[in-house]
Amino acid sequence: MADDATRAMIIDGKAFAASLVDRITTATAALIADHGITPGLAVVIVGEDPASQIYVRNKGETTARAGMRSETHRLTDTTSQDELLALVQTLNDDPGIHGILVQLPLPSQIDSSAVLGAIDPDKDVDGFHVVNAGRLAVGLPGLVPCTPLGSTLLLKDRLGDLSGLHAVIVGRSNIVGKPMAQLLLAENCTVTVAHSRSRDLPALCRTADILVAAVGRPETIRGDWIKPGATVIDVGINRVPALDPARAAEGKTRVVGDVAFAEALDVAGAITPVPGGVGPMTIASLLANTYVAACRAHGIVRSALDA
Amino acid sequence: MADDATRAMIIDGKAFAASLVDRITTATAALIADHGITPGLAVVIVGEDPASQIYVRNKGETTARAGMRSETHRLTDTTSQDELLALVQTLNDDPGIHGILVQLPLPSQIDSSAVLGAIDPDKDVDGFHVVNAGRLAVGLPGLVPCTPLGSTLLLKDRLGDLSGLHAVIVGRSNIVGKPMAQLLLAENCTVTVAHSRSRDLPALCRTADILVAAVGRPETIRGDWIKPGATVIDVGINRVPALDPARAAEGKTRVVGDVAFAEALDVAGAITPVPGGVGPMTIASLLANTYVAACRAHGIVRSALDA
Repeated sequence: MADDATRAMIIDGKAFAASLVDRITTATAALIADHGITPGLAVVIVGEDPASQIYVRNKGETTARAGMRSETHRLTDTTSQDELLALVQTLNDDPGIHGILVQLPLPSQIDSSAVLGAIDPDKDVDGFHVVNAGRLAVGLPGLVPCTPLGSTLLLKDRLGDLSGLHAVIVGRSNIVGKPMAQLLLAENCTVTVAHSRSRDLPALCRTADILVAAVGRPETIRGDWIKPGATVIDVGINRVPALDPARAAEGKTRVVGDVAFAEALDVAGAITPVPGGVGPMTIASLLANTYVAACRAHGIVRSALDA
Repeated sequence: MADDATRAMIIDGKAFAASLVDRITTATAALIADHGITPGLAVVIVGEDPASQIYVRNKGETTARAGMRSETHRLTDTTSQDELLALVQTLNDDPGIHGILVQLPLPSQIDSSAVLGAIDPDKDVDGFHVVNAGRLAVGLPGLVPCTPLGSTLLLKDRLGDLSGLHAVIVGRSNIVGKPMAQLLLAENCTVTVAHSRSRDLPALCRTADILVAAVGRPETIRGDWIKPGATVIDVGINRVPALDPARAAEGKTRVVGDVAFAEALDVAGAITPVPGGVGPMTIASLLANTYVAACRAHGIVRSALDA
């Protein structure tokens, strides 16, 4: 093993997210004091998926702690598409709600894309609406998906100006890989999007100053795929059996990223851990989007991110 | 100079565009015969810019020759934004018009983005509307900007399956570079977008199986920036002084691309010339978009491109 001096700096996403939430909390207090506007986030959950229930509770609690109005709408798993669309319309029309998030996945009787497409793009704090994808693509102000937004904030905090750096993004999903490419292009990176069909992925990754892993398969990116000194952002959240065979036999699990973390530590200049890297930034970015949406709804030009 | 056997194949965009227009003409005749639907394209030009006048006349003539309904609306350069927006609304509401193209540039009293944003996205045959940018980004059916669409058709005609090839696009404009990246990603290429801030652009270009030059500066991409055997798509149209000094002194000009064509001939596997490469494909793609828009407006699923 290399000595500590040659090991990667571990990017503390949890601490950065906490400081971002603090800034948003301060900005929210000022928005209430100066303008009488309380940012409001409505989260809609349909059914009883346990993981979704945890996410939604965390989102609601963090929103409330930041001083925002938080609403959670819990619908049964027999909810019809029309009922859900009616709720979305009510929230679209509610001037006290600036952000609407419909937790995925939705039950099979509901067409997710119809529901996401019904959200007012200016309240689409998940940034999944086609209009927000278009705004991001052409460089207009919009709302950006939370995970790539959070990843970009971590990169700028770590590296400062990203101009001219070569970013390689492995993965081309609509919610991570593709918007990440747009964000890093806007930061003047040279941007490569790679994926399962890419040839000689290891060599391609080794050209990256910034390597973003959004593959969705555990520990796919190996240490020798990383250019020495590169900054690695690991977006993956994969549940695998526990290391201890006895515990694994009991069904115990652990969470790992898309990067072989222990190997990467000896090569990268900096890397986000899993958990504790990109994950905590996602919910902080959701609050940032809600704050920005509230400001824009009232024609106020300022951003918690610049605070 | 290398002998002919080692010289690049010159991609005849003019011939391919003519064959595409032929296919669209046949498909249009069938659409009229089978469904009584005549695709209709309305082109709007404001002012007297000579180059725009030529483009608009060519578009109108080609549209009519393909058997489509062609309308050209000529407005004076004192037209107000409200007058132009009213015309766009009339065309949006006209069921006989399936495609609307507002020729750019517009006079300074008119906000181009407001006008382009007012066009019904389903009639936006230029593919410039933010909704079409979003549809392209997330993989929904939409209308795609004509120059990258035409360039992609040339690549597929030349190379067949593009899967796994590394495409390097130099230039990141909203009307060429960025949509080209989306189209080639959808074809399963590994896609790199480079630009003026990119470091060591020559070395980056030399990694490309497909090199797309959309820089907007004459003969920027040199022969030794090209990987031997690569396919080069030159989107540039640059007017420079004539080669003959006497003619240049008289103000005579010639048109060159963004690639140093003579140098590239000795290295590339295939290359589009300027003129006669991508240029003719742009107008053919406009007709293809108009045909597709007419089919979709009537719920008919078929494409001239597959004919």
